[in-house]
Amino acid sequence: MSQPLRLGIAGLGTVGVGVVKIIQHKADMLAMRTGRDIVITAVSARDASKDRGVDLSGYAWETDPVALAKRDDVDVFVELMGGHDGPAKDATVAALGLGKDVVTANKAMLAHYGQELAVLAETHGCVLRFEAAVAGGIPIIKSLTEGLAGNTITRVMGVMNGTCNYILTRMQSAGLPYDTVFQEAADLGYLEADPTLDVGGIDAGHKLSLLSSIAFGTMVNFDGVELQGIENISIDDIVQAADMGYRIKLLGVAQMTAEGLEQRMSPCLVPTNSPLGQLEGGTNMVVVEGDEVGQVVLRGAGAGEGPTASAVMSDVLDIARGTRITTFGQPANTLKPAQAAISKIECPYYIRLELVDTPGALAKVATVLGQSDISIKRMRQYDHDGENAPVLIVTHRTDNANLLQALEKLPNTGVVIGTPVALRIEDV
Amino acid sequence: MSQPLRLGIAGLGTVGVGVVKIIQHKADMLAMRTGRDIVITAVSARDASKDRGVDLSGYAWETDPVALAKRDDVDVFVELMGGHDGPAKDATVAALGLGKDVVTANKAMLAHYGQELAVLAETHGCVLRFEAAVAGGIPIIKSLTEGLAGNTITRVMGVMNGTCNYILTRMQSAGLPYDTVFQEAADLGYLEADPTLDVGGIDAGHKLSLLSSIAFGTMVNFDGVELQGIENISIDDIVQAADMGYRIKLLGVAQMTAEGLEQRMSPCLVPTNSPLGQLEGGTNMVVVEGDEVGQVVLRGAGAGEGPTASAVMSDVLDIARGTRITTFGQPANTLKPAQAAISKIECPYYIRLELVDTPGALAKVATVLGQSDISIKRMRQYDHDGENAPVLIVTHRTDNANLLQALEKLPNTGVVIGTPVALRIEDV
Repeated sequence: MSQPLRLGIAGLGTVGVGVVKIIQHKADMLAMRTGRDIVITAVSARDASKDRGVDLSGYAWETDPVALAKRDDVDVFVELMGGHDGPAKDATVAALGLGKDVVTANKAMLAHYGQELAVLAETHGCVLRFEAAVAGGIPIIKSLTEGLAGNTITRVMGVMNGTCNYILTRMQSAGLPYDTVFQEAADLGYLEADPTLDVGGIDAGHKLSLLSSIAFGTMVNFDGVELQGIENISIDDIVQAADMGYRIKLLGVAQMTAEGLEQRMSPCLVPTNSPLGQLEGGTNMVVVEGDEVGQVVLRGAGAGEGPTASAVMSDVLDIARGTRITTFGQPANTLKPAQAAISKIECPYYIRLELVDTPGALAKVATVLGQSDISIKRMRQYDHDGENAPVLIVTHRTDNANLLQALEKLPNTGVVIGTPVALRIEDV
Repeated sequence: MSQPLRLGIAGLGTVGVGVVKIIQHKADMLAMRTGRDIVITAVSARDASKDRGVDLSGYAWETDPVALAKRDDVDVFVELMGGHDGPAKDATVAALGLGKDVVTANKAMLAHYGQELAVLAETHGCVLRFEAAVAGGIPIIKSLTEGLAGNTITRVMGVMNGTCNYILTRMQSAGLPYDTVFQEAADLGYLEADPTLDVGGIDAGHKLSLLSSIAFGTMVNFDGVELQGIENISIDDIVQAADMGYRIKLLGVAQMTAEGLEQRMSPCLVPTNSPLGQLEGGTNMVVVEGDEVGQVVLRGAGAGEGPTASAVMSDVLDIARGTRITTFGQPANTLKPAQAAISKIECPYYIRLELVDTPGALAKVATVLGQSDISIKRMRQYDHDGENAPVLIVTHRTDNANLLQALEKLPNTGVVIGTPVALRIEDV
């Protein structure tokens, strides 16, 4: 049997503790599967005195993750702190600079610095792996980078933020407004310290940008992700969508076109009976389309101690077995810059807006849509008590540019109050 | 860049030709992803003169696959001939004996000789990989062996024979009897030369036995798979199941219990609206349950040129990248013998039988069921013209032993004609 593989784990939150438990409880099984012992030599977290429910007494303690990363008795630096820069990045850079392999769950860091870190890793002959950064326990990074590597990938899509999916499905099932369910999610500890990361679609956008890089051989381009959060989704939208046979999901889509790389993460209407429509709570789903394999769908828990620790262990066990894969599936210096493109693919849209209740208001809206070549499939104005009239429109297929043009003009009609909500209808 | 990886491909049917096309058309992409060129040096098939729609002129031709496997200019032997022994096995043994890596799509060979071949591979320091042997393009072997390797696997289940699923869904959608659709499938070339391999559940049983070995660390035990084919499923069963909100699927389930390893492959009723119930045509689905990750579901095309070639390439690219994984995820000499066990888990059953149309016949059946502690949830006797009366029974939860006891006794009543059809109802 080879030498033990020695881990230094920085970050002892839910996921870090989950990893410690697996290594402590399954030592024999892991050694059997990889041919070597996997041990933890040192850990790092802010508070050494906190009881985390696991015995950490056998491990050296470092308050500074950079010091942990540099320790001679650490072969693999496991970064589970989070934060797109700061100590997480400093420690990762330190480890890679010393030729140590790194396993991380940090999508934000990779979305911002993935290219730079991958180059650093490859320059020093080490690997930087991140299975746990995308879609929790689903082995999507491995599937895309290795299992489907014989394919030219044509499209990647998915629901990749469990918190948003929890909020949207809870609104639906309990008939509760956004603010109430948002507060529930906060109370349950489901939200990031900065909740905009979740509900603004940023976290899911980070994940999509990492999948795009592997799928299309391009440098991570998070700034190129067209982002729309779920903050403006009302219970009315949920109910209306359900009436029409749809659910609202925060859906990511990435595809390479002649114009460039389209990446968008936005709430969409998907058919209630589709696999995506049936996703409940924190479950994630990723759909990969390849020229050889056709469509492959993966579903599983998107977060939580066990699923995320399972993904971290996948990378650790790969390293223990001697598997060496480049961060994005090809050498980082061969990744091409990703030219961001706005989708030209036509689709129907769901539009909800509030009109002042004056004669001719609806006609003005219809005129603006018509001027942008948007043809209306269904329009509905609701009963209302107040001065404002809620209006719901489903369009025929139209392209994004036309829609954006219309949305820009609508406020100028003087009859639209606030910002209209416009959501794609995806027949996936 | 490293030396080119030189393949010898034995078997130039659909899958073999698919692999040749990928290697010819995507040489640059594959080299980018793996860091080395992947080339074919020699091929082997029965008929050298046949036009297969690809240019094979650059490759040496061997009529004997064993000779191909032994060639000095072949690093990896790619076995795509099929057949559980004979030339496929001889050539595989020859390659492994010379320390050459082997990639195969041959589930039958591995179900029968997996242990022996894995030991041979590991003794000679080479790898024997088989992603294409199970569930076509779905990266299930990789997910189970690598992606979920930090988990103790508790259950594996799935629909893994596209031909059976085609037959069952086509009967359902077209309302056609089994024999008609079987003939259609034969005409479409969907059936194995020996169709019992498909419709008898043998092919799917082979696949399940391979997944069990990885999941539970046991030697492949195909003989321990409780097999039931779809030959006795009538259009009546399909229609009745649909009326009750179910679809009939050839479903495999493997789980480790205190009594031993349960493996069964049998037609089951699953809810129409469940992910398994919605599987259409040749699509496969595999569900893996792990103690950390919870439930992970993978769906994709179970057969066909592109999907199967994609899976073969996954193994080839792993080898090109230097990834070395044992055949069943741990050294073959550490795999434990699998003690076969019959499921004790209770479930409801669907039973269809034909009664002679005499007074008291139904009472006799009900009595036999009662004596075996089987309680009836619903019973229905149909209108009939002839002398025989079709009867449908849905039981409350009961265990398999009770059911088998009752099925054994039913013919002794003298009122049951032929063999009753009994199918599990799985609420998955």
